[in-house]
Amino acid sequence: MSRVTFVNGQYFDYVNSKTHIEDRGYQFGDGVYEVFSVLNGSIVDYDSHINRLFRSLSEINLKSPYKKKSYLFHIKNIIRKNYIINGLIYLQVTRGVAPRDFKFPKNVKGCITIIGKNISANSYDKTFNRGIKVKIVKDMRWKRVDIKSINLLAPVLAKEAASKYNCEEAWLIDEEGFITEGSSSTAWILKNNVLITTPLSNSILNGITRQSLIKGLKRNNLKLIEKKFNINDIKKSDEAYITSATQYVMPVIRVDNFRIGNGRVGKYAEIFRKAYMEAVILS
Amino acid sequence: MSRVTFVNGQYFDYVNSKTHIEDRGYQFGDGVYEVFSVLNGSIVDYDSHINRLFRSLSEINLKSPYKKKSYLFHIKNIIRKNYIINGLIYLQVTRGVAPRDFKFPKNVKGCITIIGKNISANSYDKTFNRGIKVKIVKDMRWKRVDIKSINLLAPVLAKEAASKYNCEEAWLIDEEGFITEGSSSTAWILKNNVLITTPLSNSILNGITRQSLIKGLKRNNLKLIEKKFNINDIKKSDEAYITSATQYVMPVIRVDNFRIGNGRVGKYAEIFRKAYMEAVILS
Repeated sequence: MSRVTFVNGQYFDYVNSKTHIEDRGYQFGDGVYEVFSVLNGSIVDYDSHINRLFRSLSEINLKSPYKKKSYLFHIKNIIRKNYIINGLIYLQVTRGVAPRDFKFPKNVKGCITIIGKNISANSYDKTFNRGIKVKIVKDMRWKRVDIKSINLLAPVLAKEAASKYNCEEAWLIDEEGFITEGSSSTAWILKNNVLITTPLSNSILNGITRQSLIKGLKRNNLKLIEKKFNINDIKKSDEAYITSATQYVMPVIRVDNFRIGNGRVGKYAEIFRKAYMEAVILS
Repeated sequence: MSRVTFVNGQYFDYVNSKTHIEDRGYQFGDGVYEVFSVLNGSIVDYDSHINRLFRSLSEINLKSPYKKKSYLFHIKNIIRKNYIINGLIYLQVTRGVAPRDFKFPKNVKGCITIIGKNISANSYDKTFNRGIKVKIVKDMRWKRVDIKSINLLAPVLAKEAASKYNCEEAWLIDEEGFITEGSSSTAWILKNNVLITTPLSNSILNGITRQSLIKGLKRNNLKLIEKKFNINDIKKSDEAYITSATQYVMPVIRVDNFRIGNGRVGKYAEIFRKAYMEAVILS
């Protein structure tokens, strides 16, 4: 059975899912996206993700081709048509097809693509139980990474650099020596039972998983400080984690050459994962 | 007669020129490009552009799907098939089609697109005689703009912001108050018969038109200083220009609210244009 995608109002076989070479997403990275996790057939934190999509669109002055409820309709179709129980949905909106010109085109409708993917439920658990390794890489990104745009060459190069060191994620370090976030995740460390993560700004993405974990922490009276942290703070930390839509809460056991804690998954990892899972809203 | 493009080894009608929605150029901006000017049927500075393309590819560790001479072969076909006398060639190379993952895919061939466009020869002259207006906009780009990548959302937003003020170009200003370059051009000012432009670094693109103009200046004993300049320097300048593959040397008559010189095209504009045109190499 072949996979089915959604492209601008129609459903296509994966192989025949195409866009024009003058789609502004292809020539300028002129578009934004969201990744939704699908858990037991339900979409995790749908409203938060779709609201962030609309915020990203608004920040780049791109009028959404659809209303919010139409996205949900088509995303649910993609879940159904691809028999997704556990997996993810990738949704992208670009400024549409027009003869190449940096200025916005007039009277052009945005292009929407939706792709679904099955992911085996126990692949997450396996990685969770083992923990992941992180490499620190210079943050080379533009100054508005709070917009979830498809200008992703800097994080692509960072993740590739990390993978050369057998690391699953790159933590990006700014010119002052502070970790901003992961190349596609939020970065967290734990010290003396207090969780620490970088405060929101234009230099990090307002992670939906970050938001839900924070809700879960409050419900469970777990302590959080939002402050910048550097390599020394990482070295002194007891545990560390990344969060993202598809990784949920994922423990980090090594950063560069430093073991975190005793180099094994710490006891808080499971506590935070539970707190997160309790806090998420399913659609 | 419909336009013809080149996509991955085949020629297509413009309307049917498509790439897969999981082309990494579309999802990550994971690709690089060049724009070549076509003048009286010849390609301007072909070798310099294709060498810069290969440098950009190398900087992002993307193996070129073709050797240099194959690009020339297909570019010449696009010129011929589209009857281009004066115009431009747009050439883009991405890391190819693969299931979405930040890490580089293995055993995937890059995607190449070539698009040609006719531009009326006197449209350049008209704009040259009138001069253009420039708006100063914050430089929000990533830290490796010396790589000519398709991560162009920041320059797109800058050019759009400029166009709201009826300006044809945006000059990007860094956090120290220096102009780096235009959103898609090199920035120049003239003071006391000496031309000034920003020195090369990772913060600007090594413009091919910039290189050729510099050759032309040397041949004609015209003076150049490569140094950073700020808004005060612009206010005090006698003339100003942008250069790019398709704009050649283009005079600037206004920057924000400041008239440059007397607000009309200065006498050096024609001198620099001639010096540039003498220095270019045609293929």
